[in-house]
Amino acid sequence: MKQVHCEIITIGDEILIGQIVDTNSAWMATELNKIGIRVKQISSISDDAEHIISALNLAANRADLILLTGGLGPTKDDLTKKTLASYFESPLVFNEEQYAYIERIFTAYGREVTPINRQQAEVPLCCTCLPNELGTAPGMWFEKNERVFVAMPGVPYEMKSLMQKEVLPRLIRHFKTPVILHRTFRTQGVGESMLASWIEHWEDQLPPHLKLAYLPSVGEVKLRISAWGDDREALEHEVSLQAQQLLQLIGKHIYAEGEDSLALTVHRALVSKGLTLSIAESCTGGAIAASLTQNAGASAYFIGGMVSYDNRIKSTFLDVPAAVLENQGAVSEETVQFMASGIRKKFSTDVSVAVSGVAGPSGGSDEKPVGLVWIAVDGAHGIRSKSFRFAKDRERNIEMTRLSALKMLLDYINSDD
Amino acid sequence: MKQVHCEIITIGDEILIGQIVDTNSAWMATELNKIGIRVKQISSISDDAEHIISALNLAANRADLILLTGGLGPTKDDLTKKTLASYFESPLVFNEEQYAYIERIFTAYGREVTPINRQQAEVPLCCTCLPNELGTAPGMWFEKNERVFVAMPGVPYEMKSLMQKEVLPRLIRHFKTPVILHRTFRTQGVGESMLASWIEHWEDQLPPHLKLAYLPSVGEVKLRISAWGDDREALEHEVSLQAQQLLQLIGKHIYAEGEDSLALTVHRALVSKGLTLSIAESCTGGAIAASLTQNAGASAYFIGGMVSYDNRIKSTFLDVPAAVLENQGAVSEETVQFMASGIRKKFSTDVSVAVSGVAGPSGGSDEKPVGLVWIAVDGAHGIRSKSFRFAKDRERNIEMTRLSALKMLLDYINSDD
Repeated sequence: MKQVHCEIITIGDEILIGQIVDTNSAWMATELNKIGIRVKQISSISDDAEHIISALNLAANRADLILLTGGLGPTKDDLTKKTLASYFESPLVFNEEQYAYIERIFTAYGREVTPINRQQAEVPLCCTCLPNELGTAPGMWFEKNERVFVAMPGVPYEMKSLMQKEVLPRLIRHFKTPVILHRTFRTQGVGESMLASWIEHWEDQLPPHLKLAYLPSVGEVKLRISAWGDDREALEHEVSLQAQQLLQLIGKHIYAEGEDSLALTVHRALVSKGLTLSIAESCTGGAIAASLTQNAGASAYFIGGMVSYDNRIKSTFLDVPAAVLENQGAVSEETVQFMASGIRKKFSTDVSVAVSGVAGPSGGSDEKPVGLVWIAVDGAHGIRSKSFRFAKDRERNIEMTRLSALKMLLDYINSDD
Repeated sequence: MKQVHCEIITIGDEILIGQIVDTNSAWMATELNKIGIRVKQISSISDDAEHIISALNLAANRADLILLTGGLGPTKDDLTKKTLASYFESPLVFNEEQYAYIERIFTAYGREVTPINRQQAEVPLCCTCLPNELGTAPGMWFEKNERVFVAMPGVPYEMKSLMQKEVLPRLIRHFKTPVILHRTFRTQGVGESMLASWIEHWEDQLPPHLKLAYLPSVGEVKLRISAWGDDREALEHEVSLQAQQLLQLIGKHIYAEGEDSLALTVHRALVSKGLTLSIAESCTGGAIAASLTQNAGASAYFIGGMVSYDNRIKSTFLDVPAAVLENQGAVSEETVQFMASGIRKKFSTDVSVAVSGVAGPSGGSDEKPVGLVWIAVDGAHGIRSKSFRFAKDRERNIEMTRLSALKMLLDYINSDD
């Protein structure tokens, strides 16, 4: 099967003057990869007819598929649509169906359709209009000289919706791309090379049509199995067997499959088990509580938290004995254990988590260097505590502590399963 | 003066497969804009010799300056350097100075220089080597047919350091770019159109060589004055007079000049005034405390915080009377006032801030819709409280609340100046 090559062209000055970062292209590239289409080049160009035409010509020489985003708004400097009409030698015509969408959107917001908005329903005659339910500019699908061109608005949520509902399914049909399956497993707390050494033999025995990718970020590594084939059912079965073997090898480091963050996974586990939670934070300064309460519905389990930054708060409000703070110090196993049991008792919750560490850059010593962190979880199974040695960078240490605390909490509440 | 046009080319598959978002190009475009160089196109291409040569040829036809990032690592798939040597018809030679850097870096980490790392000190004979103090791959400056080409590593902090220390100063000298000054004023809590209406007359009287840009983000708008000229001193004086007028019009909404975030501005103000702080958060769930404690040295003023998510915590630990929670509700002026005075008293701090709101998406009512937030600040000047009406989106409401609380706190502690 011939490899389908794609080029992405983003139109507009916002990226070229550095006002916005082009996150659209990375998202599109990821989605295209999932259906077996390879991105050869991404170009950001200005809202200039000559530049657009030249970019289209160059891309059409190199690729089978050209995706354009941006330049479809109602204002005068957005001349993409006129330029496309001229490139495809096709006049702009009024599209009734798209106009009905525009009217519906404006009516919903109690606004009147202006002549400028009416113009947004004009599209080149030769294109297939792709309905955009979230905005006034439709997507446009063109075919010329065995190339496919798709123009979409640059607003990220409009583009993503159009891609998912219209463009990707059409691309699969048009290019008859092979069946491609992906399964992503999210791990926390183990480095890429460590994971690689544990699963080396398993990875070596994978057949050529199954590939494993390591996708690392701060504190986390995602493992993605991708499989290519013709028969979806057989492929699903094969991937499922391989995934089972992977889970046997490193299952305890995998906290979720798919796109859910660790905070969302903990949130769901607490909701489903009906457990209440309290948190005592020192070096993370509220970041653990903030990441859980980003999720709608956190009030179902989250009772409250204490950011006990000063030792006075640890002793007065969390009942950490002054002698422990004096002798073992704020960053010690004894202190986090008292913090975890103190907040759990005071706030009367089923489980609690507490962290204390040297975030840096200053405050470290030979005995307790920057990056040393203690974490404790308290609940019906008693207290569990653990120390970590992170790095020199404050922001990274805070994030690593937040993730490690969430992972310890998740393991704790799952340990009675 | 002729406009200098630039093209940015990023090399490597990470962007094309969507594994990383290209943040480098936006940063480079912003810095180039500041010295009056306009970016015409940004291209991401694969690590492929033919593709690189063709991209260089196309860019050289359109631009005066071509900046390349990526593809300079020691591994085999990074063939940028060989391709550049062939493009400029110049052999790779060993550069003693760069090798000395590499040796120093490896010695500092207690590692031995491998033959592969030794190769990183090889550069095309015709280039000027730009020392990279943060990594093993040097920057390379080429000139050909009145075009300038600069190749840099793709690691963001290495690229930024090379740009700031080497590339930008050389570009200013080489292209004799005009004197360009920028002053950026950061505002919080007022929308773009509101600001525009207040400063309309001032903006209209700006001379053509002074331009104002509005740079909006969630809860904030940056106003950037840019000025072009030949005489730095005269231009500085002129911009300073205009900035004074701007400050007279909207000074109370400007919290800082330059790049400092609102959290960092509050952090600095508390440190310099020697005031201690406590925080009681409900709907922000710890995000206010987390943003302040991201800054190294927060322990100088931050005593602690309470995330009083459940009403039980508000009444038991912050002394909000049960009758107030019952009659006025958790999201009310009375409740946040009690929260602010409660945390200040309990944690014995100079100032305190408290927030309570309906973050959404559920939990709203006709009387108290999603997006309603109350904020209070307590301190030596007594309690100040204020309500806000944000939008429907939970994440956005939390961020708007965090910023509004920090702004109210900043105004409070600055009000005795």
